[in-house]
Amino acid sequence: MYDTLRRIVCDANKQLHALGLAPFTWGNVSQADRARGVFAIKPSGVPYDKLEPDKIVIVSLKDGSVVDGSFNPSSDTPTHFELYRSFPDLGAIVHTHSINATAFAQAGRAIPAYGTTHADFSYTSIPCTRALTESEVTGDYEYNTGKIISDHYREEGLDIETTPAVLVHYHAPFIFGDNAAKAVENAAVLEIIAEMAIKTEQLAHGKPETIDRYLLDKHYYRKHGDNAYYGQISQDD
Amino acid sequence: MYDTLRRIVCDANKQLHALGLAPFTWGNVSQADRARGVFAIKPSGVPYDKLEPDKIVIVSLKDGSVVDGSFNPSSDTPTHFELYRSFPDLGAIVHTHSINATAFAQAGRAIPAYGTTHADFSYTSIPCTRALTESEVTGDYEYNTGKIISDHYREEGLDIETTPAVLVHYHAPFIFGDNAAKAVENAAVLEIIAEMAIKTEQLAHGKPETIDRYLLDKHYYRKHGDNAYYGQISQDD
Amino acid sequence: MYDTLRRIVCDANKQLHALGLAPFTWGNVSQADRARGVFAIKPSGVPYDKLEPDKIVIVSLKDGSVVDGSFNPSSDTPTHFELYRSFPDLGAIVHTHSINATAFAQAGRAIPAYGTTHADFSYTSIPCTRALTESEVTGDYEYNTGKIISDHYREEGLDIETTPAVLVHYHAPFIFGDNAAKAVENAAVLEIIAEMAIKTEQLAHGKPETIDRYLLDKHYYRKHGDNAYYGQISQDD
Amino acid sequence: MYDTLRRIVCDANKQLHALGLAPFTWGNVSQADRARGVFAIKPSGVPYDKLEPDKIVIVSLKDGSVVDGSFNPSSDTPTHFELYRSFPDLGAIVHTHSINATAFAQAGRAIPAYGTTHADFSYTSIPCTRALTESEVTGDYEYNTGKIISDHYREEGLDIETTPAVLVHYHAPFIFGDNAAKAVENAAVLEIIAEMAIKTEQLAHGKPETIDRYLLDKHYYRKHGDNAYYGQISQDD
Repeated sequence: MYDTLRRIVCDANKQLHALGLAPFTWGNVSQADRARGVFAIKPSGVPYDKLEPDKIVIVSLKDGSVVDGSFNPSSDTPTHFELYRSFPDLGAIVHTHSINATAFAQAGRAIPAYGTTHADFSYTSIPCTRALTESEVTGDYEYNTGKIISDHYREEGLDIETTPAVLVHYHAPFIFGDNAAKAVENAAVLEIIAEMAIKTEQLAHGKPETIDRYLLDKHYYRKHGDNAYYGQISQDD
Repeated sequence: MYDTLRRIVCDANKQLHALGLAPFTWGNVSQADRARGVFAIKPSGVPYDKLEPDKIVIVSLKDGSVVDGSFNPSSDTPTHFELYRSFPDLGAIVHTHSINATAFAQAGRAIPAYGTTHADFSYTSIPCTRALTESEVTGDYEYNTGKIISDHYREEGLDIETTPAVLVHYHAPFIFGDNAAKAVENAAVLEIIAEMAIKTEQLAHGKPETIDRYLLDKHYYRKHGDNAYYGQISQDD
Repeated sequence: MYDTLRRIVCDANKQLHALGLAPFTWGNVSQADRARGVFAIKPSGVPYDKLEPDKIVIVSLKDGSVVDGSFNPSSDTPTHFELYRSFPDLGAIVHTHSINATAFAQAGRAIPAYGTTHADFSYTSIPCTRALTESEVTGDYEYNTGKIISDHYREEGLDIETTPAVLVHYHAPFIFGDNAAKAVENAAVLEIIAEMAIKTEQLAHGKPETIDRYLLDKHYYRKHGDNAYYGQISQDD
Repeated sequence: MYDTLRRIVCDANKQLHALGLAPFTWGNVSQADRARGVFAIKPSGVPYDKLEPDKIVIVSLKDGSVVDGSFNPSSDTPTHFELYRSFPDLGAIVHTHSINATAFAQAGRAIPAYGTTHADFSYTSIPCTRALTESEVTGDYEYNTGKIISDHYREEGLDIETTPAVLVHYHAPFIFGDNAAKAVENAAVLEIIAEMAIKTEQLAHGKPETIDRYLLDKHYYRKHGDNAYYGQISQDD
């Protein structure tokens, strides 16, 4: 019944691992099926080479409960649940501890837009949330991780379309996409721009200048939105 | 009719990807056929593993229009067109967002010649252009990217033979070569010397000294020009 | 007689090499069999591709002498012996010279807990011992290396369960686990958190803040101990 | 006639490339046959995947002339010749532009002995020569590169056995070994200790302390010389 969704999410999780973004059992990918009111997510702690579609867990978008599957879902499932709940257009989520992006998260810093590689990916800097408070951590921790992200987007006037990734302070990135494959690609791009940003700062002896808004506009909208002209899209219309 | 040129450019694009210099659909390689008045370039947004010779687009060197091919050419095609127009001896162009070279571009810095690895490749530092102005960006952006490069070479008295790569501020490198395979090799070398330069600066606690002109002369002309004695060239004569 | 233990230790040593954590003949893995009063360890100086189970050396947990095997055991065997002797619950030991962890050891610095990736692995910073004195080095050097580690744990009130790795100043890390495979995984995780910590410090322009105790508690005990809820453990009970 | 020597040197050159230490046609390995008064060296500018034993060039140890082979020898042949001439016990030489070691060379800095990984390899810091003067560069450049190395060893009282690698300022490393395979392994170790040293300096916020002589003694002589007890040597005696 959820065969296609399970296969998509299984493949995306394996791809995340193959890209080196999720060693061991770290990281997880989920994808929502809004029509059916569910999302599919990686089981907790299962090594990627042992992952198979029928181990993927189906979770309700209504209350976060397991709808189908015999495995425990990822321990980060309540984070995914809260994010799907808060962002009605959100199609897929990736969580990694990729090294360069996590270094920014650990330093409690947003990733500034230092160049067009960043602008091709995100219309804003990649934000970093505040740290969770003690009561948020000792309470429903994973749910509150999602809550702090959705609160940050709302307070800062951000949206997941133009800001497709976020860092949680002291923790690691969460990355968004229309589907699981795209979210995994976005996770890889995030890691690249994070590494570029670290080296850019090193070369600029302190804080380099960020790119001008008009250049960011140009690159972002060259690839995204109605006037995008990158790729073969116009042929498909 | 353009079968050989298409195959050469297709292979070079795949090689660029295999070398890790162009993940996803990033980066592009073109090669000119001056006798026929065209250049061949990667289609826009096509993944490298789906690239085939018949998807390569043939573009006019006279006016930049598509001469042959059913795909959209790379969105950077006007940059390539302007560069082929400005440099009559230019045989091939590579564009990447390779991490270390792009970090220099984002920092708005030329790559200084810190050693013989650099001198074997380029007779000068690898220059970095000024940033494009708002009107240059909102106007014919990709064409103006080529224009700012050719202007920089003219104003600084540089030529593509002895300065085979250039960084566009806030953006990334463009690399030149007599043919597509050589330009791809040059793109790989550029990334290596950029990484070496970053680490050299780190070790020298600030700005290291650049190599003396006589050593740069020696290494550059050991590999380039009429008196080169590197390789098996003399056997071919 | 020791066939299973030998195969486990042989496989773990090869895995250590395959993960890039032990080039050439560097690094070694051992695992104890407490019931039989022995541990199995890599032979000294044998390349990993020539390693076979019957070359693994069986050493007495009582006096450190070779019990079975025709090869010289790793030169670090007295270190392993002293560690198994001091920590009665210790199941397996890995020694590497992995680059990022070794850089911390060479700098004589503990690896601070900068984020949840660290907290998932260790409940404390990864400690760094004092350097060995001249008499400790010229005396029974390898044994004293084990002694300085066990002394450090005792003096600092640490245990190997919650602090699964330690750095020896001017030298390199030793990593612990319940079995050889887990210790090898821990060695890989240590290298990742060391690299993240280096980059975190770079981004924070000096010393970043370490994570709050309540967040460290949460992540550590989410994966470890009786109340752990990560993975499929509850299904196995 | 030189079949075995040619095969050994061909294999070692290919191994150097496979280890990532010599991209493109960079780098070269030679090995001497003192009894026959020759050394074998890589041909100039031949890609590693096209290298075959019969392309290896045989050069006279007496006067540096080509004794056998139809290809041009490496342009660095006069450097190798001068080194074999100056060091009568030298068995093999490797030249690379490996990134981390070259960064030290470009910064004009020796690699300090920051830990036991270094001490296992070299009994001293890895020295860096002065830069060549203009007349040395415009004269017999490659020969003078060898001369500046042998002069440096003589002036500093170093020998190739205990200092198996050297950096030439503004250029790159030369690495020594008893045979080609060992010299290639040494080139790989040099690159690792260079990377560790860069990161150690970063972590120590400036110049870290070097290891004490007694620890360096211990590790070096554990692996080298008559009292070495690392490996399976005692079994071979």
